Amino acid sequence: MSDNSFGHLFRFTTWGESHGPALGVVVDGVPPDLPISAEMIQRDLDRRKPGQSRYTTQRREADEVKILSGVFEDERTDGLRTTGTPISLLIENTDQRSKDYSEIRDKFRPGHADYTYFQKYGIRDYRGGGRSSARETAARVAAGAVAKLVIPNVTIRASLVQIGPHKIDYANFDWDQVDQNPFFCADPRAAETWATYLDGIRKAGSSAGAIVEVVAEGVPAGWGAPIYGKLSADIASAFMSINAVKGVEIGEGMHAAELTGEENADQMRSDRPLPKFLSNKAGGILGGISNGDPIVARFAVKPTSSILTPRQTVTTENEDSDIITKGRHDPCVGIRAVPIGEAMMACVLADHMLRHRGQTGREGGIGFGRNDL
Amino acid sequence: MSDNSFGHLFRFTTWGESHGPALGVVVDGVPPDLPISAEMIQRDLDRRKPGQSRYTTQRREADEVKILSGVFEDERTDGLRTTGTPISLLIENTDQRSKDYSEIRDKFRPGHADYTYFQKYGIRDYRGGGRSSARETAARVAAGAVAKLVIPNVTIRASLVQIGPHKIDYANFDWDQVDQNPFFCADPRAAETWATYLDGIRKAGSSAGAIVEVVAEGVPAGWGAPIYGKLSADIASAFMSINAVKGVEIGEGMHAAELTGEENADQMRSDRPLPKFLSNKAGGILGGISNGDPIVARFAVKPTSSILTPRQTVTTENEDSDIITKGRHDPCVGIRAVPIGEAMMACVLADHMLRHRGQTGREGGIGFGRNDL
Amino acid sequence: MSDNSFGHLFRFTTWGESHGPALGVVVDGVPPDLPISAEMIQRDLDRRKPGQSRYTTQRREADEVKILSGVFEDERTDGLRTTGTPISLLIENTDQRSKDYSEIRDKFRPGHADYTYFQKYGIRDYRGGGRSSARETAARVAAGAVAKLVIPNVTIRASLVQIGPHKIDYANFDWDQVDQNPFFCADPRAAETWATYLDGIRKAGSSAGAIVEVVAEGVPAGWGAPIYGKLSADIASAFMSINAVKGVEIGEGMHAAELTGEENADQMRSDRPLPKFLSNKAGGILGGISNGDPIVARFAVKPTSSILTPRQTVTTENEDSDIITKGRHDPCVGIRAVPIGEAMMACVLADHMLRHRGQTGREGGIGFGRNDL
Amino acid sequence: MSDNSFGHLFRFTTWGESHGPALGVVVDGVPPDLPISAEMIQRDLDRRKPGQSRYTTQRREADEVKILSGVFEDERTDGLRTTGTPISLLIENTDQRSKDYSEIRDKFRPGHADYTYFQKYGIRDYRGGGRSSARETAARVAAGAVAKLVIPNVTIRASLVQIGPHKIDYANFDWDQVDQNPFFCADPRAAETWATYLDGIRKAGSSAGAIVEVVAEGVPAGWGAPIYGKLSADIASAFMSINAVKGVEIGEGMHAAELTGEENADQMRSDRPLPKFLSNKAGGILGGISNGDPIVARFAVKPTSSILTPRQTVTTENEDSDIITKGRHDPCVGIRAVPIGEAMMACVLADHMLRHRGQTGREGGIGFGRNDL
Repeated sequence: MSDNSFGHLFRFTTWGESHGPALGVVVDGVPPDLPISAEMIQRDLDRRKPGQSRYTTQRREADEVKILSGVFEDERTDGLRTTGTPISLLIENTDQRSKDYSEIRDKFRPGHADYTYFQKYGIRDYRGGGRSSARETAARVAAGAVAKLVIPNVTIRASLVQIGPHKIDYANFDWDQVDQNPFFCADPRAAETWATYLDGIRKAGSSAGAIVEVVAEGVPAGWGAPIYGKLSADIASAFMSINAVKGVEIGEGMHAAELTGEENADQMRSDRPLPKFLSNKAGGILGGISNGDPIVARFAVKPTSSILTPRQTVTTENEDSDIITKGRHDPCVGIRAVPIGEAMMACVLADHMLRHRGQTGREGGIGFGRNDL
Repeated sequence: MSDNSFGHLFRFTTWGESHGPALGVVVDGVPPDLPISAEMIQRDLDRRKPGQSRYTTQRREADEVKILSGVFEDERTDGLRTTGTPISLLIENTDQRSKDYSEIRDKFRPGHADYTYFQKYGIRDYRGGGRSSARETAARVAAGAVAKLVIPNVTIRASLVQIGPHKIDYANFDWDQVDQNPFFCADPRAAETWATYLDGIRKAGSSAGAIVEVVAEGVPAGWGAPIYGKLSADIASAFMSINAVKGVEIGEGMHAAELTGEENADQMRSDRPLPKFLSNKAGGILGGISNGDPIVARFAVKPTSSILTPRQTVTTENEDSDIITKGRHDPCVGIRAVPIGEAMMACVLADHMLRHRGQTGREGGIGFGRNDL
Repeated sequence: MSDNSFGHLFRFTTWGESHGPALGVVVDGVPPDLPISAEMIQRDLDRRKPGQSRYTTQRREADEVKILSGVFEDERTDGLRTTGTPISLLIENTDQRSKDYSEIRDKFRPGHADYTYFQKYGIRDYRGGGRSSARETAARVAAGAVAKLVIPNVTIRASLVQIGPHKIDYANFDWDQVDQNPFFCADPRAAETWATYLDGIRKAGSSAGAIVEVVAEGVPAGWGAPIYGKLSADIASAFMSINAVKGVEIGEGMHAAELTGEENADQMRSDRPLPKFLSNKAGGILGGISNGDPIVARFAVKPTSSILTPRQTVTTENEDSDIITKGRHDPCVGIRAVPIGEAMMACVLADHMLRHRGQTGREGGIGFGRNDL
Repeated sequence: MSDNSFGHLFRFTTWGESHGPALGVVVDGVPPDLPISAEMIQRDLDRRKPGQSRYTTQRREADEVKILSGVFEDERTDGLRTTGTPISLLIENTDQRSKDYSEIRDKFRPGHADYTYFQKYGIRDYRGGGRSSARETAARVAAGAVAKLVIPNVTIRASLVQIGPHKIDYANFDWDQVDQNPFFCADPRAAETWATYLDGIRKAGSSAGAIVEVVAEGVPAGWGAPIYGKLSADIASAFMSINAVKGVEIGEGMHAAELTGEENADQMRSDRPLPKFLSNKAGGILGGISNGDPIVARFAVKPTSSILTPRQTVTTENEDSDIITKGRHDPCVGIRAVPIGEAMMACVLADHMLRHRGQTGREGGIGFGRNDL
């Protein structure tokens, strides 16, 4: 049991505060002999990095990752390979500007974790939110990059599908568009709408919520587990653990409540080597176990609580006060949540692949013709 | 790591199949010296029990619970008390009618876990869904009854808030109504609408989805943990682990995406002994830690996949076929999910209370006046 | 985290008190499609069963096991097979004679866990030691029988190698002798000496300690883990968790302190397909990982604390008193610890096989010729 | 489940290889608001540090620890305090001299983990033993220093009690002597004998085994758990996880086998506020739970396998070869194991205090007069 760890066989532990000297992650349980490089991990980190457009925080962090353990030079190639021992990854904090946060030492920012950390621990590193800062998610993205090595046949992609009231049109959905706009948006038209909308939000000193959709293709049938180790339950936990997330959906999600049994259950037809589903309302998971179809999951990110409108709050002495959170904040934290969602999905899947392999000796489903095995 | 266990300090493990001789749960980590009785647990089980109205399965199970360990006669009173050792609870299966399911031995029921279990394990107890049957949730409800003993100051209640397209009107919300209708519905008008709607669904041999809302009052600020042990993440995992659940929300949930920062962040005012929040968009959780306000969470249950309309499927030999699932099924499994949702919430909270107490030595938040401690 | 569970991928949870209605175990993580039967488990239970000779307690328990879940009829044969879901095993208590223990309600038996349970929990089921009774080990033996199914190529055997001051002579060591005497002793001469010695001990109302040696053959190189998941650490934990155990050794054990580096390190010579070790001082484990040689481990069991000589103690009111523990006790609990040691070894190895397979995709070591893989 | 983590509520994860850039530990679950400093941790590290006498390796490592997270400046004092978030500690490797190890790339050193790592992972960082190097124990010692903060009323001390065939005389035992000789030996006469003995061993290029005794005073009755979470089982696991350890004992240990029931069970007499035990054969633990007496545990460390005598071995191509392990090695690794044993004991006890507090709400035993509580 560890409040800062995630996963079982593929298990990572993060540490670090927003304005401490560094943050990092220890990834344990990585299979040996996988090719790895700092560049690989850096590519994913760069996608999450702050300051890449006017829609994300202007804090300038290089987020440069160092591999401190768990790898060794491979004599057959020139590169590094994992050794099976824990991989420690370190990212130094370089642009903290701690004085921006002097006001929040004595006041609780509404919508933030300031008050709850205070009540839990009685002491907190208030600078930039300390441990509750979204900077911790850099460590997750680094862990996710390692997780992807474990499941090379799985493709994980994500798109922002809603900002504020504006949803994408799935008719326009094109994965290739995701890296063509500052929103990781698969619908180029929606991206335009969002640009206008967010410019307004940003100028008003306000902020907007968002929804991220994560899709994993190439997951064979059979990963997951029946009851509490459900693949869906672990995805829900993974996404809900991301800062500011308030809702999680698999497949039809909350909307499943409005369907009838006929509309909801995906019918099947025979196919080779495996049967096919005629629809994917299930989001690729039945009874907590993957069914071979793409895994489709979404999560809602609330609007950044740091806004320029004065809000009512109390001080650490329990006295009334007002607060404006200046700092350098994301008008829509949902944007940078896209690579984080991908990373968490990768970690869940890597863990479940290893667990499935451990229990069954197979990396995928049993297929058909059990007597032939 | 155990796919059939949930929780850490308060931890339970369930076992049993739909048509096996019995099912049960072992609850570990229960504090000693708490008053307990089989009647207490039975009361909760009776709320979940099948066959109580025409809107739930007609399978007749007494669901009678036996306490096999972990309790001892208290000489001071006449009752039983917990001893701190694991509490084993057993429920015998009495009304299995296995022949109802003979057809499904060789076919996968769309929307069910039949296919995924087959792919994962290569062997499955197909009778009534085996381990993936909702009968397992009786064990959860029993565990939840024990969990409530651990957190006596917390009141956990739930209401069905939506069936199919029909939502309750929160203006009519009245907890006292929940046990006055066959839907666990806090809005008596909605209950009437649902009765008509579900009668139609039932006669059509179809089924409907639903949304359950669970509210926990009396949780002090401070329970939960910052990162992966977030109270919200554990609630998400708990709810998503319930059969047929496809979405989970805390507070504003998926709708948080549509709010601005001003609308979303709950402002605070000084009060005694603790400050108050002027709204509860957060659903009682900030940064993964309880803030002292009621915890409000929802989950969506997909429509029962067992319907009378013929559906396309494949056989265990990967050949095309059709299937009608006769059996005795709930037209809306969401109804019986209400006490299950309460039970899972109780288990999550009991676990987090113990974890919080372990780490901090306190059962609640630090309050104000830290220097006085 | 669960104080009544053991293992990770292969994980079991026991429950039950000495004089409760039943005791049992839930075994989780068992791979699917393994042949299993109650008879198989019963055979192991029968070896541990009380009352089989005058050297063990005269309590008469059938220790009859029932399989309540996790298995299904195999159509290809007539037998049962595991399904991958949790296997719940139940053993009813039938011969409790609770009145024998009426005196110990108010007094702490020296050497027993009475006082420590009282201090920990403030309440305890004093009848026959309650949860701390060695009856719990029946559940371990049942779990061990399941574990053996997971590692069919491994042979686990154990022998008592010392009772009181009398050690076996390894020159006489013969596994076939183990079931030919009431001591599970591989040295028939030692068994004779022990018979005489224990008769004296028994008549004097005293008790004797013992040492059990457990050997696992057929474990390939590669099981275990480098640091805290060491195979040796898990064996130490497993053995030390058995009632009355005070010491654990691997290979040379405590005696390793007296060796020089030359004497201790097992030299290697090339062989096919794998090199061989010229000795086995390591007891089959190097750096926490199996090396392919037999795993050799020992544990010391203290003498039964229940003796007929009056002992000084205190009451639950902290007043001086004397106590004679009548009951029906083993003059040497070490004897019945032999099948328990085998069972715990089987559980540790089954767990590590699954973990190794999960992390590496292999069931054994990499062998030689890595480039050919 | 994590092979590189230890503990549950107090849980640490170590990482790093002997010749990588650094090693470190993340300590999770530390209660908030405890005073902490790098100096505090450094003091313990300095006791384990290599190169402090001619009896330990001549590798020169500063072992300078940096605190990277989990602490915050306390405004009431000038020092740092824990915040409840994970504490990341980093130690850079500065004196690796990797070329010393070039020979071992292609050969397995007898008695080392080289062969087993190779079989498990198929790839290994052979430099200095990589992950299996005793350098990892620096991270344990750092974790132990943090653990001590959690249990300030417990005094943990250790002494070497045997080197090779030479045992201490307990009549001379004096804790104040431990830091007066290069062996952490509580018996000054034994220290003299050892000096002579080890000089011979060192000159002969050989090595010696040793036994360490760890004593924890001030542990109240009630810590631990009945079955698999036994305090004794966790100590056994903790000690057996230390490099080169082959045996673990609690109280009378292996010798308990030779005692009779009368000799072994510690009698009790009434005392205030708590009764006293008339002896401590149990080593402070009964039924897996502390009894209030000092906890006494020992572990045996095998002789360093790195010796100058040529040994028979095989190459990574499975061909016969000889090897002399030059490097800079401890003639008796048992010496530096003394602070490591203290650290592991501290970690086990800190974890169990938190677990006990979580489950029972108390930090110690219930005392007497339960009705007054």
